[in-house]
Amino acid sequence: MRASTGIVTLTTDFGLADGYAGIMHGVIRGICSGVVVADLSHQVAPQDVRGAAYLLYAAYPYFPADTVHCVVVDPGVGTSRRAIAVETPRGRFVAPDNGVLSYVLAREAVTAAVSLTDPRYHLSRVSHTFHGRDVFAPVAAHLACGISLPDLGESLARLVTFTVPGVSVRSGGALGGQVIHVDHFGNLVTSIGQLLWRGDDLLLQPAFSVVGEQGSEQESLPFPASQAQVHIGDQCIEGIRPTYGDAPAGELLALVGSVGHLEIAVAGGNAAQALGIGVGAGVFLEVKRP
Amino acid sequence: MRASTGIVTLTTDFGLADGYAGIMHGVIRGICSGVVVADLSHQVAPQDVRGAAYLLYAAYPYFPADTVHCVVVDPGVGTSRRAIAVETPRGRFVAPDNGVLSYVLAREAVTAAVSLTDPRYHLSRVSHTFHGRDVFAPVAAHLACGISLPDLGESLARLVTFTVPGVSVRSGGALGGQVIHVDHFGNLVTSIGQLLWRGDDLLLQPAFSVVGEQGSEQESLPFPASQAQVHIGDQCIEGIRPTYGDAPAGELLALVGSVGHLEIAVAGGNAAQALGIGVGAGVFLEVKRP
Amino acid sequence: MRASTGIVTLTTDFGLADGYAGIMHGVIRGICSGVVVADLSHQVAPQDVRGAAYLLYAAYPYFPADTVHCVVVDPGVGTSRRAIAVETPRGRFVAPDNGVLSYVLAREAVTAAVSLTDPRYHLSRVSHTFHGRDVFAPVAAHLACGISLPDLGESLARLVTFTVPGVSVRSGGALGGQVIHVDHFGNLVTSIGQLLWRGDDLLLQPAFSVVGEQGSEQESLPFPASQAQVHIGDQCIEGIRPTYGDAPAGELLALVGSVGHLEIAVAGGNAAQALGIGVGAGVFLEVKRP
Repeated sequence: MRASTGIVTLTTDFGLADGYAGIMHGVIRGICSGVVVADLSHQVAPQDVRGAAYLLYAAYPYFPADTVHCVVVDPGVGTSRRAIAVETPRGRFVAPDNGVLSYVLAREAVTAAVSLTDPRYHLSRVSHTFHGRDVFAPVAAHLACGISLPDLGESLARLVTFTVPGVSVRSGGALGGQVIHVDHFGNLVTSIGQLLWRGDDLLLQPAFSVVGEQGSEQESLPFPASQAQVHIGDQCIEGIRPTYGDAPAGELLALVGSVGHLEIAVAGGNAAQALGIGVGAGVFLEVKRP
Repeated sequence: MRASTGIVTLTTDFGLADGYAGIMHGVIRGICSGVVVADLSHQVAPQDVRGAAYLLYAAYPYFPADTVHCVVVDPGVGTSRRAIAVETPRGRFVAPDNGVLSYVLAREAVTAAVSLTDPRYHLSRVSHTFHGRDVFAPVAAHLACGISLPDLGESLARLVTFTVPGVSVRSGGALGGQVIHVDHFGNLVTSIGQLLWRGDDLLLQPAFSVVGEQGSEQESLPFPASQAQVHIGDQCIEGIRPTYGDAPAGELLALVGSVGHLEIAVAGGNAAQALGIGVGAGVFLEVKRP
Repeated sequence: MRASTGIVTLTTDFGLADGYAGIMHGVIRGICSGVVVADLSHQVAPQDVRGAAYLLYAAYPYFPADTVHCVVVDPGVGTSRRAIAVETPRGRFVAPDNGVLSYVLAREAVTAAVSLTDPRYHLSRVSHTFHGRDVFAPVAAHLACGISLPDLGESLARLVTFTVPGVSVRSGGALGGQVIHVDHFGNLVTSIGQLLWRGDDLLLQPAFSVVGEQGSEQESLPFPASQAQVHIGDQCIEGIRPTYGDAPAGELLALVGSVGHLEIAVAGGNAAQALGIGVGAGVFLEVKRP
């Protein structure tokens, strides 16, 4: 058995009741003594690949760059979907090849990507139903303990990804985006980001693609947060606040969330329920010019 | 304080809200520095001894053999039920003597078993209501840090167990079993196992007792998975599939689950709800001979 | 990066679904390699400062004295509320200055207290909405890895606290208290504590203030547990039992809970639901004199 002082994170939809996540801890520590296993979440909604992708996007920048992130949200377990490992300057990722790394791949350069075809790095008996235990956990452990990523299997040139929602610039200068995540407080995280505070102004440094309707980026930035108007559903929210505590309880507000994206919340309440809105809903940000 | 690089796992019905599990982490690390504490589950249904027993059965083979498994599902806390520690070649176990180790004891040889009667290895003040904190956690920590199991108390010759459901061979060759666990996806795990894939065939290597109605094991194995018929409730399922993804969404299917037991699932759904069936329900496996 | 073998505990209302707690693990380990991060609870009810305060009270005595307890239940995140660190002989605490340390401060001497004003110990970019990640986690990590508490910011003479409910002695000798916590089993923990067993008798060593209506402590102790009467809602419970298992299923009982406080439970049931009672409800303990 090898030893490491590195970190393996786990992100799954296994829940915490059945011990599946705990079993992955056991497999990893049996292969790589000393490694720290950190649970990112085991409560991704069942088979919600996009939810897991967002969660990983919010978390991986806060881990050391030699961390191995193991993601098992895997509707296609046991079918012909590939299992992959990907190396970037900001972390290594082990996951099914189903788009769950889309946000990461939109931001980070890939220095190596392989299909997990070498059985030496899997458990000796691989089930058809629990690759988290039999394939992903052992591979993550071997990576954490020094196995080189290209040793794990055949090199890959293309990975499955979905298009990461970005920001579109509309005629008249409004910014369009969509809800990309609903957190467990019911806050609606949108694709409009990164928004950075500069005093009372906000500066937009797009996290992903900006598509201008006339083919160019014409928005003038920074803009005063108090002059922003956010349109979502049939609501219009005046101004972007710094934080939840700035609005009276029960009031709908727009703010910059912890990932730097425009977020819609109800102070002390649940915006998703209040608005009846979920992932995919459109959102628009307009700046009133006096 | 002693130090260790070993693992203590925790399985309880404490939930995660009240901090009880976290307190056990504190006690263990206060006694045995360096030990890794891995949570198997704290969401066993309240006082569900059989559920915890199954969970442990599914998990312990995936941990290093020197792991200490600490199980606190303990309806009789503070009464005269014994607290025990058991040593096997595949792990040590600390638990109330209420049957929660039944699956483990049906599979592993016991090399030592004691009643936890020596107060030197408990906290100095033992409550009547939280032996997880005051007895089981400290004992697990002492074991992980080198105390020998026989030092913990009086040797025991007999332990409380329930009869582990197995497989019965019925006249005509059908195999009978029962549902032994419902996981949080609603999948029904049965006592019919271990089923091993050999190409498209299945081989039955009984995990526990096989009782033949005519006193012998007469089933001819392996058999083609496609010719199996599984009867549960008023349903008949044709064939045993390799994995969930092999059936269209909403369809009832039989497969070999991650523990190697016959499992009934609804693709992308909840079989327990769909069938209105839970632990104890009968299941039959028949192989059609052409 | 520094290294430590210490412990940081986390207590938050973040839930486990969104990965917020996992991100804090990443931040802490990125700053302080080797530190153990133990989750006390991430399921404090949203913004329930008193619930988190109680939970910490129940847990911190069971951790080594050099542990850093990081509490993020923070309705005022991003507003002018202070972020603080407090040093006591029984642990260091990092939290918003909103009363969440009230129980700890009622029991432990404070050897140093500071406002977290030095940005060198925060992440380089501090959001308005997630100080758990940007301020509290990094400060806890720096403390665990050897930074001295007074280095973190300006010294504080006063901290925000709420009055910790205690025991009042009423004319006639009855003890009055209130429900201070409802755990996830529905057990009602009261402010009447610490109750210590001496054989079949109970001894009251008040955890916090005892207020006598005639200005003195006149209760004669110890008293026989079987002669106690507990009044809550419109119920009168005869006797204080050692443990849950001593009453038939469904029966309302009074017992000494794991923190040493008088607790009201329903054997195998949920007392909060059965009585329709929650935090703040009055409770009285009377001892019948023959």
